[in-house]
Amino acid sequence: MRTVCFVSDRTGVTAETMGHSLLSQFEGLQFRTVTMPFVSSVEQARGVVGRINTIAKEEQARPIIFCTLVDEQVRATVKQANGLFLDFFAAFLGPMETELDLKSAHTSGRALHGASNDPTYTARINAVNFALANDDGAGARDYRSAEVILIGVSRTSKTPTSLYMALQYGIFAANYPLAEEDLESGALPSVLLPYTAKLHGLTIKPERLQQIRTERRPGSRYASSQQVQYELRTAHSLFERLRVPYIDVTDTSIEEIASRILDHMGLVRHARM
Amino acid sequence: MRTVCFVSDRTGVTAETMGHSLLSQFEGLQFRTVTMPFVSSVEQARGVVGRINTIAKEEQARPIIFCTLVDEQVRATVKQANGLFLDFFAAFLGPMETELDLKSAHTSGRALHGASNDPTYTARINAVNFALANDDGAGARDYRSAEVILIGVSRTSKTPTSLYMALQYGIFAANYPLAEEDLESGALPSVLLPYTAKLHGLTIKPERLQQIRTERRPGSRYASSQQVQYELRTAHSLFERLRVPYIDVTDTSIEEIASRILDHMGLVRHARM
Repeated sequence: MRTVCFVSDRTGVTAETMGHSLLSQFEGLQFRTVTMPFVSSVEQARGVVGRINTIAKEEQARPIIFCTLVDEQVRATVKQANGLFLDFFAAFLGPMETELDLKSAHTSGRALHGASNDPTYTARINAVNFALANDDGAGARDYRSAEVILIGVSRTSKTPTSLYMALQYGIFAANYPLAEEDLESGALPSVLLPYTAKLHGLTIKPERLQQIRTERRPGSRYASSQQVQYELRTAHSLFERLRVPYIDVTDTSIEEIASRILDHMGLVRHARM
Repeated sequence: MRTVCFVSDRTGVTAETMGHSLLSQFEGLQFRTVTMPFVSSVEQARGVVGRINTIAKEEQARPIIFCTLVDEQVRATVKQANGLFLDFFAAFLGPMETELDLKSAHTSGRALHGASNDPTYTARINAVNFALANDDGAGARDYRSAEVILIGVSRTSKTPTSLYMALQYGIFAANYPLAEEDLESGALPSVLLPYTAKLHGLTIKPERLQQIRTERRPGSRYASSQQVQYELRTAHSLFERLRVPYIDVTDTSIEEIASRILDHMGLVRHARM
């Protein structure tokens, strides 16, 4: 087991994201992760050094430190800790400054992340509200404003995927659950007919869906093998017949489902984290 | 204007996150971003090179390429494009291999991101379901299972924040809107009384709240300066009296609100992106 520290002057999301991406390259090793966000003064940096040195001593292995600190003094302080110091800004800012022929700000980037004047912030909040209002076929049903409408049987990750698209990219994603009536009729519900070009299907392996539904309603018809297989088979033929593109979510993370759908539908990512 | 390309063998989220973090250091410059995800073969890499070279020619400026490709051949191919090639894995994998005394997998990390066997995947889906079921004081109200309960008046980003905590970190976050009845009584609603230690308040500047509410219901009492000021003032004294910690969301991104609350409440981040 090795401890990994994400040290940042902001939220730590960048350090966490890059860290996990690199750690995933060392399969079989166990890592414990600690996020140390909002480290903006030399005094706070000294506190971080103290914590890291204590961990190094207790575990008799020096932590791996993913650092996204822009202030040079704060950064220099954390660098003194007993750990492998991986310095994100040091690695890339230099080449970028040369390329752009411009000195970088070396400030913690709040300006771009300030909420009230940031159009992407409003875009994301609006997109979340849209996803919630157009979740599960109920509510406002403003499919005209939707950029994508996810369809699939119950428990195929429609809601988390649409919320992720909204929060991460400001995409207006509605979702519509294919209910038994829809499947029996073998046709799209009439509310969706004008928007077939916006549809994207989600499917899943029957065994996995049965497992998920059983956790939710053990022993129910809803969770039965027969019902699950019927629904998935019928949804599948609906997708095929209407030429609705679809993705199997069984072994796919929410990020990947979202990213593949955006890619496939040619949707532009509006917002950014 | 300079074009920035995020080239990845997976979703591109890591490349986007690190890229935006670095670009925010060059204020005043305009960037256009293009995500090129799921580049996993040399053939696809050649397609990417073609796209980048075309952009370089058309814009007479070579793009900045943030690359998170692990396959060496794919990476070497993209490196030939006419752009500033910033190679994420090349920068950090070497030092990590030395430190851990282990060769990295150099595979695109699907194993760790595969959904059905990944406990963090289930944790996140469960957390999203929890946030939805315990949103806005309605529904299941399973405050016993909540790790944090966000409280605040209407339109203080409670819902996006709780959803972000769920999706990003697998945190069980409920939220409760302080309605006029609650504010008039000057006391916590009785359903929350057993859980005061889990409460975290959200507040916002009156001008900003008035603006948000006006966009929603122009000219309404709900959006009036008087009402907004009354609600915020009363919520504020409730927070102070009950010693509920709170954060002003006015100039704060959702990431930062979430991160500050987790930090403040000492909550451990369960999941990862």
